[in-house]
Amino acid sequence: MSRISYVNGRYLPHKMSMVHIEDRGYQFGDGVYEVVLVLNKKLIDFDGHYRRLKRSLEQIALDYHFSQTLIKQIINRLIRFNLISNGLIYLQVTRGVAERAHQFPDDASATLVVTAKPISISPVIEGKKAITTTDQRWDRRDIKTIQLLPNCIAKQEAVENDAFEAIMVMNDGTITEGASSNLWMVNKENQLITRKASNIILNGITKVTIAEIAETQKIQVIERAFTVNEAKGAKELFITSATAIVTPITQLDEHMIADGNVGPVSLALRNMYLKKAL
Amino acid sequence: MSRISYVNGRYLPHKMSMVHIEDRGYQFGDGVYEVVLVLNKKLIDFDGHYRRLKRSLEQIALDYHFSQTLIKQIINRLIRFNLISNGLIYLQVTRGVAERAHQFPDDASATLVVTAKPISISPVIEGKKAITTTDQRWDRRDIKTIQLLPNCIAKQEAVENDAFEAIMVMNDGTITEGASSNLWMVNKENQLITRKASNIILNGITKVTIAEIAETQKIQVIERAFTVNEAKGAKELFITSATAIVTPITQLDEHMIADGNVGPVSLALRNMYLKKAL
Repeated sequence: MSRISYVNGRYLPHKMSMVHIEDRGYQFGDGVYEVVLVLNKKLIDFDGHYRRLKRSLEQIALDYHFSQTLIKQIINRLIRFNLISNGLIYLQVTRGVAERAHQFPDDASATLVVTAKPISISPVIEGKKAITTTDQRWDRRDIKTIQLLPNCIAKQEAVENDAFEAIMVMNDGTITEGASSNLWMVNKENQLITRKASNIILNGITKVTIAEIAETQKIQVIERAFTVNEAKGAKELFITSATAIVTPITQLDEHMIADGNVGPVSLALRNMYLKKAL
Repeated sequence: MSRISYVNGRYLPHKMSMVHIEDRGYQFGDGVYEVVLVLNKKLIDFDGHYRRLKRSLEQIALDYHFSQTLIKQIINRLIRFNLISNGLIYLQVTRGVAERAHQFPDDASATLVVTAKPISISPVIEGKKAITTTDQRWDRRDIKTIQLLPNCIAKQEAVENDAFEAIMVMNDGTITEGASSNLWMVNKENQLITRKASNIILNGITKVTIAEIAETQKIQVIERAFTVNEAKGAKELFITSATAIVTPITQLDEHMIADGNVGPVSLALRNMYLKKAL
């Protein structure tokens, strides 16, 4: 069976899913996106992703009216057409096709693209290596735009250093987030620390759910910035995202985190997230 | 006659010029571009644009081998097919089509897109209004990437304020450049001031040529940062780009520059640029 994708009202063979060269997504990165996890054919945290998508569209004044019901219908069809049990939904909205000019066009209609692909959820979770790198991104990291070249460059640097993720660091020495994830640490006092949502990082949907789960477990969650040195001294480090769910980081640059093994808090939160989702 | 564009080896009707939804240009803004001016069917400053394109590709480690001769051949065909006398060539290279993942794909081939469109060069040049706005861009503005959403937002703010260009300002109060141009001022000492090329601004090809022309005219060119207040106190302000050539700015926010008329240095440089080009 060939993969099916959605482009502006049509369900097409993935290979034939095309957009115009003057789509503003292609010439300006003028668009926003979401990635949603599917477990057992069920959309995970969809309300949060939909709310964030709407906020992203508002923040860049991209006028696109669609209902949560319509989006859900498209996604559910793609899950069916592509025989997805566990997978990822990728959804992108751009400002549409217009003759190239920086200002927003008066008469363009937004382009909506949705794809689906299967993933396997491993029952065994291994600790991963991450590297640190300079955060080179623009000032509005709270908007989930497709301005992702700095994230790609950071991730590539990770891959070239046999690492799973790149942790981005500001000039003041504090960590912002991963190239495609949020970072958390468990400190010596067993508090769970993660950076507070602001213009400086993306407000992760999985991050919000993990914080809720932690609180039900009486784990104290503190939202504040922390440095690379603090992270290296942590009892546990882990990242969260729709794709990574909870993935333990057991090595940061050349430094082992604690004894280098996956810690109990990371494991428990991952398991509780998966259980809650199913 | 219908407009013809170039996509990866093929000359196609513009309306049918498409790229895949998983082209990394569309999902990550992972690509670079150039805009080249055509006057009387002749490419202006092409060597400079080609050199900068090569540098941009190198800076983002985008491996794409093409010769200056090939690119020129494509452009000259588009000039012919589209009956361009005066016009603009838009050329974009992205990292190609690959299953979505932030790191650079091992097996993707770069996508090359080239378009051409006619423009009219007015013999009479009017002074334009510009506004000032915060520079929100990422750290590598020296690379001509398609990470252009902040530029689009700035230009849109200009249009909403009946202005032609948005002049971007850093936190330290200094001007970087326009949303799609470099800014220059003529100060009280008749020196020509423009910001020095660095990671902070794009090294404008038209800017370099204008500096060369100014020097042949014994006008002192000083490359340094300047503030909005200095700009408002200038004798003349103007912007340069392949599209704007030399365009005088006679109003910055609500402040008239000098007496609000187009100044002699701006006019002379524009005329000498057009004469040199032809």
